[in-house]
Amino acid sequence: MPAIFPSLSALREAARDLPAPDEVAAAAVAARDAQLTKPPGSLGRLEELAAWLARWQGHAPRLARVDVLVFAGNHGVTAQGVSAYPAAVTAQMVANFSAGGAAINQLSRAAGASLRVIPLALDKPTQDFTRAPAMGEEEFLDAVAQGHEAVAPDADLVCLGEMGIGNTTAAAALAAALFGGGGARWAGRGTGVDDAGLARKRAVVDAGLARHASLRGNPLALAAALGGRELAAILGATLAARRRRVPVLLDGFVSTAAAAPLARLRDDALDHAHAAHVSAEAGHRTLLDELGLVPLLDLGMRLGEASGAALAVSLLRAALACHTGMATFAEAGVANKE
Amino acid sequence: MPAIFPSLSALREAARDLPAPDEVAAAAVAARDAQLTKPPGSLGRLEELAAWLARWQGHAPRLARVDVLVFAGNHGVTAQGVSAYPAAVTAQMVANFSAGGAAINQLSRAAGASLRVIPLALDKPTQDFTRAPAMGEEEFLDAVAQGHEAVAPDADLVCLGEMGIGNTTAAAALAAALFGGGGARWAGRGTGVDDAGLARKRAVVDAGLARHASLRGNPLALAAALGGRELAAILGATLAARRRRVPVLLDGFVSTAAAAPLARLRDDALDHAHAAHVSAEAGHRTLLDELGLVPLLDLGMRLGEASGAALAVSLLRAALACHTGMATFAEAGVANKE
Repeated sequence: MPAIFPSLSALREAARDLPAPDEVAAAAVAARDAQLTKPPGSLGRLEELAAWLARWQGHAPRLARVDVLVFAGNHGVTAQGVSAYPAAVTAQMVANFSAGGAAINQLSRAAGASLRVIPLALDKPTQDFTRAPAMGEEEFLDAVAQGHEAVAPDADLVCLGEMGIGNTTAAAALAAALFGGGGARWAGRGTGVDDAGLARKRAVVDAGLARHASLRGNPLALAAALGGRELAAILGATLAARRRRVPVLLDGFVSTAAAAPLARLRDDALDHAHAAHVSAEAGHRTLLDELGLVPLLDLGMRLGEASGAALAVSLLRAALACHTGMATFAEAGVANKE
Repeated sequence: MPAIFPSLSALREAARDLPAPDEVAAAAVAARDAQLTKPPGSLGRLEELAAWLARWQGHAPRLARVDVLVFAGNHGVTAQGVSAYPAAVTAQMVANFSAGGAAINQLSRAAGASLRVIPLALDKPTQDFTRAPAMGEEEFLDAVAQGHEAVAPDADLVCLGEMGIGNTTAAAALAAALFGGGGARWAGRGTGVDDAGLARKRAVVDAGLARHASLRGNPLALAAALGGRELAAILGATLAARRRRVPVLLDGFVSTAAAAPLARLRDDALDHAHAAHVSAEAGHRTLLDELGLVPLLDLGMRLGEASGAALAVSLLRAALACHTGMATFAEAGVANKE
């Protein structure tokens, strides 16, 4: 793996030097939209989505190539009893993805998207962040680079998701460090811990925050200390997508937390991303509010795997179908507003 | 057209004599669901939707045939200046549907659904309900029958929508008569009336309620007096779907108001129906709350034409794909919850 980002400061610099949106392409969408046979605005967010695709793609909106990227990692913090499932499930689920048996396989197919699963050193869990930084700088940058390189420049959309037993604990700790509050604000039941598990999870988040308190105000160092490899890869992929003009659908709590350090480095860093849904995981709505993201779907899902992101692809396809396929008032001979 | 319902009382009797759900089919879905490779409940409403399809279809869930039915009607009340568009647009949009240029054409295709548009005596608008009942009993029952017959017994799902300049005014009046409150509670901007138009619309609703006050407590008579042919047809289609074991996706404010009289005749009459979305039209959320329906989507749409219903089909297809395609824990060799 070439050193795309040889240091945290190189990564920070890249994250602050982002291409602007293409407002000409977005305006062309709006101009056509105003002529289509419907009252202005009556397709609601579908109209915004067509313009958003154009704004970040830099041309007329297109969804020929949709990639679902699922990054997987293992977490030392699972030793603290923060998950309802054993850590071995991460690798087992990666095998299930390869065999086509998981939810994301079905949802990617239904969305007309191709699925790629990228396991990140599953046999080498991160450190338990209550005792040490989860990753050293080099490990972190390597995972960021793997995410960055997974985004194809000719993709029209990427859906970013993850698999990693223990990673809602890492996401909660990272969100807390970035936006304030402790385990009580950010930790949820993840895959389904009981009350005792939830109490442990909150305490673990608080312990991680205390141990790495000196890193406050340094979003990338916090991502290395409290996150995980799959979170780092999502950060890298979100950044690469911006640089390569590929709009992003973020999945749930973990994916959103993974991309959040970018928003702390530059306010508009996630403008090319939509929150595909709001998860049932406790901290997700809070995190979306902090980031100013309005989710497209709210269906009580909390699986991860990019499942919510893949589901939302159908909304984008519908938006695009209306935008490109509808007749104008003039073409259809329909009287416009009086 | 044969007289399926020769009288309002015959229709009322049919609306009260409904088949029960198939809880065995629903339980089979839940039993398989519990074995699939995901934490229990983590697909949220997608899990409920798969069970709901089975519960009303009466067998393993299936979406081979999905029909979108759009009923169109004209409204005498447009003479009162309640719409931003001229009444001629109803027929023009029906022609646009036939030519494939409307939003619902694109959305039906994207949903893998077939679209059927049923214009109902467009050259004979209903009466202005501020001066007379919108329809006589025979006209109403004929429209109900046309809706009833439009539901194919071998459909796996029907999406019900409408087109009719002026029909958000009719829907507001009907909702007000069924659930209380007046024009201020139920009238919205429809296709986009200005403030003066909205004030007229509220006054028109209040005038209709006053004129037909004697019909309170008689939901079907209110539907005839305040509704419209396309609303009556949606009522008939919703009833037929229940009798023929076809689950229903209701579209927006008008479609929901059209089906609402059934819920006033029998509390569980709409259990085979989901609200596909909550529209931006002012009264829709209030109406869904009154009916206890929780919408699947909330995207600020307010077009009608079954557009929201067709969009939600992709959620059902995703739910079905997960339910049928996912591996079980045993098949995949994934460890279950500790």
